[in-house]
Amino acid sequence: MQNPRNYRFSRLVPEGDNRERHVCGDCGWIHYVNPKIVVGAVVTQGEQILLCRRAIEPRQSFWTIPAGFMEERETSEAGAMREVKEEACADIHINALLAVYNIPRISQVQLIYRATLASPDYSAGPESLEVKLFNWDDIPWDDLAFPSVHWALQHHRSVIGRDGFPAFSNPPGEFGNY
Amino acid sequence: MQNPRNYRFSRLVPEGDNRERHVCGDCGWIHYVNPKIVVGAVVTQGEQILLCRRAIEPRQSFWTIPAGFMEERETSEAGAMREVKEEACADIHINALLAVYNIPRISQVQLIYRATLASPDYSAGPESLEVKLFNWDDIPWDDLAFPSVHWALQHHRSVIGRDGFPAFSNPPGEFGNY
Repeated sequence: MQNPRNYRFSRLVPEGDNRERHVCGDCGWIHYVNPKIVVGAVVTQGEQILLCRRAIEPRQSFWTIPAGFMEERETSEAGAMREVKEEACADIHINALLAVYNIPRISQVQLIYRATLASPDYSAGPESLEVKLFNWDDIPWDDLAFPSVHWALQHHRSVIGRDGFPAFSNPPGEFGNY
Repeated sequence: MQNPRNYRFSRLVPEGDNRERHVCGDCGWIHYVNPKIVVGAVVTQGEQILLCRRAIEPRQSFWTIPAGFMEERETSEAGAMREVKEEACADIHINALLAVYNIPRISQVQLIYRATLASPDYSAGPESLEVKLFNWDDIPWDDLAFPSVHWALQHHRSVIGRDGFPAFSNPPGEFGNY
């Protein structure tokens, strides 16, 4: 679902503010735009990692960890569980905050948790073409959807067997651009 | 700055979506509302903690750590540094992610960093009545602006001298309601 193209917003600095906002020329509505939060999880069963092949754009048919936009009135942990349920029809146990990634180009903050499958059941939800458990060496590295999927998988691997680790952030100098 | 009260949005489930969104009755614009990110920092100089007395609502005249809404196209660390600069006119060095707090009632995620003053200079910015360094025992506990300020101060204290700690989340059973 797209927004219509004929809306009449202008960029103005509202009174009492210090930066330009989207202001509707019809009614004066100020459309505050803030960064959006993506919540997701690296989900494992034993040594295998759960990945979803995307049924939707962007990056349709590429592989990703289950993740998506956080919704109102949920916690980030509940959001990550919801996304895994929607995309991979799976229930999980979250055991740590793995990473906080920033993609400033698209004003996105990703909160990625470390989790395990709560039961062996999983299947493709409406936004996935397929869902599969991968051994590390079988991960389709060249067909991953986003740079942050690479980061999350590598960061996850670096703390296997460890608890009480600090959450990772972006690899040095990387901001999620291709 | 407030938005006008006479806009004509309805709650509808857009085609292809699975939950109600705000849709404008005039032009069809879908106003997606997602949780907002607050970025801030517990800032210390030696053993003292920097607090700001709020010049604006909500909780005007109560004390808070410097924090505010993350803006577009900045990283969360840059946002926390900007907020400290705006509210306390101070430059900081961030050394850890202290906490990720969820306030689902108001759809807010707070990313709170641990930082030190980069120089001894600080003063009240336009959103602060005063800015002050407090010894722990002098913190105005009964006049703190938000529950999450209590959480951040207590969590900060529990990891003094420690590096490589996992980011805190809400205290068990607490969701930021008064």
